[in-house]
Amino acid sequence: MEILSEQPCFGGVQGFYQHASRMTGTDMRFAVYQPPRARIEPLPVLFFLAGLTCNEETATVKAGMQRFAAIHNLILVMPDTSPRGLNIAGEDVDWDFGTGAGFYLDATRAPWKQNYNMGSYVSEELRVYIHENFNTRVNKMGISGHSMGGHGALTIGLKSPDIFQSISAFAPICAPMQCPWGQKAFTGYLGEDKKLWQEYDATELVQRQQSQNLILIDQGNEDGFLEEQLHPHLFEQACKAAGQPLNLRFHDGYDHSYYFIQSFIEDHVAHHAEILNRD
Amino acid sequence: MEILSEQPCFGGVQGFYQHASRMTGTDMRFAVYQPPRARIEPLPVLFFLAGLTCNEETATVKAGMQRFAAIHNLILVMPDTSPRGLNIAGEDVDWDFGTGAGFYLDATRAPWKQNYNMGSYVSEELRVYIHENFNTRVNKMGISGHSMGGHGALTIGLKSPDIFQSISAFAPICAPMQCPWGQKAFTGYLGEDKKLWQEYDATELVQRQQSQNLILIDQGNEDGFLEEQLHPHLFEQACKAAGQPLNLRFHDGYDHSYYFIQSFIEDHVAHHAEILNRD
Repeated sequence: MEILSEQPCFGGVQGFYQHASRMTGTDMRFAVYQPPRARIEPLPVLFFLAGLTCNEETATVKAGMQRFAAIHNLILVMPDTSPRGLNIAGEDVDWDFGTGAGFYLDATRAPWKQNYNMGSYVSEELRVYIHENFNTRVNKMGISGHSMGGHGALTIGLKSPDIFQSISAFAPICAPMQCPWGQKAFTGYLGEDKKLWQEYDATELVQRQQSQNLILIDQGNEDGFLEEQLHPHLFEQACKAAGQPLNLRFHDGYDHSYYFIQSFIEDHVAHHAEILNRD
Repeated sequence: MEILSEQPCFGGVQGFYQHASRMTGTDMRFAVYQPPRARIEPLPVLFFLAGLTCNEETATVKAGMQRFAAIHNLILVMPDTSPRGLNIAGEDVDWDFGTGAGFYLDATRAPWKQNYNMGSYVSEELRVYIHENFNTRVNKMGISGHSMGGHGALTIGLKSPDIFQSISAFAPICAPMQCPWGQKAFTGYLGEDKKLWQEYDATELVQRQQSQNLILIDQGNEDGFLEEQLHPHLFEQACKAAGQPLNLRFHDGYDHSYYFIQSFIEDHVAHHAEILNRD
């Protein structure tokens, strides 16, 4: 593990790191915040997945999570959103596909399938790597994220409820099979097989596999992507039908930005801490 | 006033604005955070001045002030650090002079004196403009800042103690006449007249003019600029000799970054609120 930087923050350490990833075939960067208590005992881990065009710095700098991770004794992990620097044709043409837009899935189509495996990268490789390199409680993990990262949090969390006991999201893409961002990404990375798409659609997944704990979602009513891309009501209906407890909160006036996220991040960190610090 | 953006944040409004400045002869951008209570009554104002290479976005995005401004009912103002886009020869050569490095003074030397008047811009023009355009208490103002902006907060605050009743700073340039950053800026903007330099040096100013209230300064012990550029001990000695109350706090491990600032920003906003909400 290469340490890119480590800086004190709220008595703990905000670090940026780089490691060689087998899943992406590239060097991957990620950020970790270790609260002060990580020096004396293993702590639960909260992954926070960023959205389109973002990287490991975005939530680290803008979300204001460290203050509450220090209070609640959680280790934070902020991964990047895609492999970088592969120079695959088409990788950097659109902001919602390719670089910065890995969609937390494992691609099956050429030329993406060798490297665009952010699903397994986050849920397997980086998860294990974090446990090997930081003072963590292996059986206590939560996952959250924003927009495309909210989609990642919901789908990775629902697929592995025993690994990620707590789930939350800000303005997640709740039904990617039914929105332009998701359809473009799934077609490009996965092809036309809708069965495969269902593996990466929270509204589909929750029908067959639920989290044992309440899922928290915050959504701004003035979010410019709400109507066309996010579809929280579809996820809400699926949760209701499946018996998945969900706290879906709508907030008047708020948009899709990190000013929205920082306004409610305290509740999300507390949500994960309450579940992960049980027993 | 041109509204560049306004976004909800902690129940208030985080806005970015632009206006035509007489003092700089350019359009100047600035950020204002209005807490929710500004909708119903006039509130005190806290200016936060950013450091070298920064702009109106830096502290707005990275400092985490809005949460506490909402709690303590303060309006925040984050100005830019220099005029921009003038294409003066030499303006963009160095990161510590010219663009992004206005040093909160009024230049007297050509070619800078027409535009590089960030001292009067912040302390006069923008201050009045804020009162004209936002729901403020005119006689209740505080000033804070980081590094070069800490220098700005100390000097502007000490020169107008009746206007800026509360002062604080993070890692300020405390004695610019005695450090390379300050000597370079003062020589370039002001020439060789050391009498003029003294008008912009907190350690000089406090000897003849004090704030009526305690000044709060936080400084990281691992700040890479501490020894050569910042000299808080010189300011501390001058405060002691002049009878200026000062709370100078050193923090082990902390550096010059916004991870340091966000770790202690709560105390600074509370410091200003306590003074500005008196009577």
